[in-house]
Amino acid sequence: MNKLEHIGIAVKNLDKSNELFARLLGVKHYKIEAVESEGVRTSFFNVGGIKIELLEATKPDSAIATFIEKRGEGLHHLAFDVDNAENKMAELNAAGFKVLTEKPFPGADNKLVAFIHPKTANGVLTEICQERKA
Amino acid sequence: MNKLEHIGIAVKNLDKSNELFARLLGVKHYKIEAVESEGVRTSFFNVGGIKIELLEATKPDSAIATFIEKRGEGLHHLAFDVDNAENKMAELNAAGFKVLTEKPFPGADNKLVAFIHPKTANGVLTEICQERKA
Repeated sequence: MNKLEHIGIAVKNLDKSNELFARLLGVKHYKIEAVESEGVRTSFFNVGGIKIELLEATKPDSAIATFIEKRGEGLHHLAFDVDNAENKMAELNAAGFKVLTEKPFPGADNKLVAFIHPKTANGVLTEICQERKA
Repeated sequence: MNKLEHIGIAVKNLDKSNELFARLLGVKHYKIEAVESEGVRTSFFNVGGIKIELLEATKPDSAIATFIEKRGEGLHHLAFDVDNAENKMAELNAAGFKVLTEKPFPGADNKLVAFIHPKTANGVLTEICQERKA
């Protein structure tokens, strides 16, 4: 993994949480982006170069809705930047981690992403993300 | 908050998890430190300048043991660097967050630390930490 790309936090109400995290972090979110295919609306904060992504469900069956139902709001995932998502997925599967999809798919923030099953990663939902070429 | 200082992850077995995270992150932990007063043994990884701290309970009534019993292993807290912990605690309490102690206390890695109750921070256990003078 090259570096931590962002930290994902599941929230019930993006607008309220944008206000709360601005108060907590001392900076405002710098963008909001919906990812229709994933059923989420996201916002991004930059704290000293690290991104914090808030995720609100826009569909009742989205992964974020299910997560909040089971565990409540809070820390959801860690995302790491990689050069090539497909190569890293193969490498992680070979190293005993279970990547949840066969291929990476488009995520927020112009990324190709994939997730590692938390059961194989000490309970941490781990995302790998590759910057998409323009 | 100046910057993200580290991400805390609760684990059952530090030695096994040190091996797992080395495999996941591609780097080995660079130190292990016990904090007797908190009933934890911790290890630290550096991924592109961000610290990841693994925390294992060393006492059955420690906060980490309770967390794992309730929620299992996984993401535990986010820690942010601050210049002055006491000033920041007063500021956060005034802004509607509930800081869990009246004073900051010694944590791992030569820090003075305090925690914000997750119920007041969208479910995120948030630590503030100040570097201690030598």
